[in-house]
Amino acid sequence: MAFKFTLLDSPGDGTARLGRIVTPHGPIDTPAFAPVGTQGTVKALDPRDLHELGVQILLGNTYHLYLRPGADLVARMGGLHQFMAWDGPILTDSGGFQVFSLAAQRQVDSEGVTFRSHIDGSLHRFTPEMVIQVQEQIGADVVMCLDECTEPLDRAYNEAALKRTHSWAARCKAAQTRSDQALFGIVQGGVFADLRQESARFLVAQDFPGYAVGGLSVGESKQAMHEVLDITTSLLPRHKPRYLMGVGAPDDLVEGVARGIDLFDCVLPTRLARNAALFTRQGRVNLRNARFAADPSPIEADCDCYCCSHFSRAYLRHLFRAEELLAYRLATIHNLRFLLRLMGEIRAAISGGCFAEFRARFLASYRSAGEQPELR
Amino acid sequence: MAFKFTLLDSPGDGTARLGRIVTPHGPIDTPAFAPVGTQGTVKALDPRDLHELGVQILLGNTYHLYLRPGADLVARMGGLHQFMAWDGPILTDSGGFQVFSLAAQRQVDSEGVTFRSHIDGSLHRFTPEMVIQVQEQIGADVVMCLDECTEPLDRAYNEAALKRTHSWAARCKAAQTRSDQALFGIVQGGVFADLRQESARFLVAQDFPGYAVGGLSVGESKQAMHEVLDITTSLLPRHKPRYLMGVGAPDDLVEGVARGIDLFDCVLPTRLARNAALFTRQGRVNLRNARFAADPSPIEADCDCYCCSHFSRAYLRHLFRAEELLAYRLATIHNLRFLLRLMGEIRAAISGGCFAEFRARFLASYRSAGEQPELR
Repeated sequence: MAFKFTLLDSPGDGTARLGRIVTPHGPIDTPAFAPVGTQGTVKALDPRDLHELGVQILLGNTYHLYLRPGADLVARMGGLHQFMAWDGPILTDSGGFQVFSLAAQRQVDSEGVTFRSHIDGSLHRFTPEMVIQVQEQIGADVVMCLDECTEPLDRAYNEAALKRTHSWAARCKAAQTRSDQALFGIVQGGVFADLRQESARFLVAQDFPGYAVGGLSVGESKQAMHEVLDITTSLLPRHKPRYLMGVGAPDDLVEGVARGIDLFDCVLPTRLARNAALFTRQGRVNLRNARFAADPSPIEADCDCYCCSHFSRAYLRHLFRAEELLAYRLATIHNLRFLLRLMGEIRAAISGGCFAEFRARFLASYRSAGEQPELR
Repeated sequence: MAFKFTLLDSPGDGTARLGRIVTPHGPIDTPAFAPVGTQGTVKALDPRDLHELGVQILLGNTYHLYLRPGADLVARMGGLHQFMAWDGPILTDSGGFQVFSLAAQRQVDSEGVTFRSHIDGSLHRFTPEMVIQVQEQIGADVVMCLDECTEPLDRAYNEAALKRTHSWAARCKAAQTRSDQALFGIVQGGVFADLRQESARFLVAQDFPGYAVGGLSVGESKQAMHEVLDITTSLLPRHKPRYLMGVGAPDDLVEGVARGIDLFDCVLPTRLARNAALFTRQGRVNLRNARFAADPSPIEADCDCYCCSHFSRAYLRHLFRAEELLAYRLATIHNLRFLLRLMGEIRAAISGGCFAEFRARFLASYRSAGEQPELR
């Protein structure tokens, strides 16, 4: 089954969209959230957990898998799906974000980027052609162009970087040899409306099967993120999926959908969970707080996850204090289920023609964690 | 359902026994192995995992639960079964072993033992009456007498400690107020045959519903352990269960059953798993070894556990190298399943009258990890 995106009819007003992506490993109902499985596992969970949570797509990080265990090894083991025993859709990023945020001593030139591994300091080089080759070895259903991630407020840097990102996008497209992987282009341009417009137009002209909005959720204000999204999605073709990279706070998901986004990924729910920060409809709670010490109620009374249907806040707090591995697992299960249920409710609201009301109601009760989108 | 032990008819020769323990939370087929859930969780697993593995009883550590989250809290949350959402049988130790192996600055006197918490240095005191009260708050199905754990080779110390252990056993029995918990006595006496005999005779006269053999697997030779077991079990009543504390290496389980033991517990399988040491029929393998880097086969080809039926050695090795939480979970699942399958095969062999052959065959292929029983 080749990659296909279908926009579904819905009575929705505004720009929120209901759709369905079909991939060689199954369908994804959009708007969708993709948990991050950085190194070939969503931290603390196994594939059975992911299916039970209702996960339809997950993200693997090319940078991490390339460094360890290596793309050659993943390929020898039958590709990432078989290696990690996940039979559903996978998306890999290009590694660009990690090279520009995690790797040491990076040097970018028009041909690519040279960097040192954050694990052992070894020297590596990514070019557009190479990240396509690596992603073909890993074998995800959706793969991404190499892009340069910038400081969002630095105009001169964004102008120079955008030239490279566009040239690399065209080279990535030319480098593809597998026909069963959908290659998405990534719109960049920082917080600058004209650069975002230029980027959207350039990439649309290249006719990618889907488009990502990159370079957000890296320190800019929520208002700036919303403006960039408004500008960008208005220029993207209606019948191609739009993917907002690295965004996963509940309120940011609702606001992204309101601006026409179909797909999100973020480490936020899983990372917060491992730090005892749990999502509720009212905002986040931290289970380390002493007020939960003898609280017999679950994280959320109406949540259907394995954690909420079996364990009390008091028990979870005890597990966190005792640094028991089960704490990370149960909290991760809850936070992911919270986001996946939220996406289901968003889809139902769009389908029912009441997304605007849903959005207003959700945002009225959800206490946002801050004025900026959560940092990745 | 009150506690009951039934010895089942079997054509077995020798001293290996087939039996069934019934508790208020369900039955246990013996010989049985109890995984250890030190702080209210078997590390890295949830109760669903334990049921899937075929676990029929698990052990909680009174010392740990008393210090954190506290027995009062466990009682307020409905007892340990409800707190940790495990509806099967639970056994708690008395805390004696941890006080004598883990706590700081302990001072023993005839009335009890004073010690400092290994967590925060706070001062505590265990008496026989108090450990019964704490175990009644925790609410396990099987509870243990407070005993003094000794250096197994120190004659004078063992003589003095045994007097205290016996006096404490009688006081524990007198202190019981719950009729739904079975209190086991613990035979001590180091490696000294006459002390072990004295201890067995004293405790048998007290008429406990079950008997443990304590003070083994603490540094003595395998031969010394076997001699103590032979002496001790020969003096214990046939129709009461016998529990060998802190023993869990595969070959030690087989040898314990051969000497009439019905129940075992040990942190060994779970602790080894978290250190990448996995049980196989031939002995232990360490997954960190480079020879597994590209090995597509499971830990054991014929194992029915979730780990072996889905993941390769190469994947598990990657998870351990990347310090992914899933590594600890999958490895723990395999090691526990290995032991539980072994116990099932032992029971089948006893039932079929061929335990002696099973024992010889198992020990011929299993490469023991050393000349001593594995340290707790």
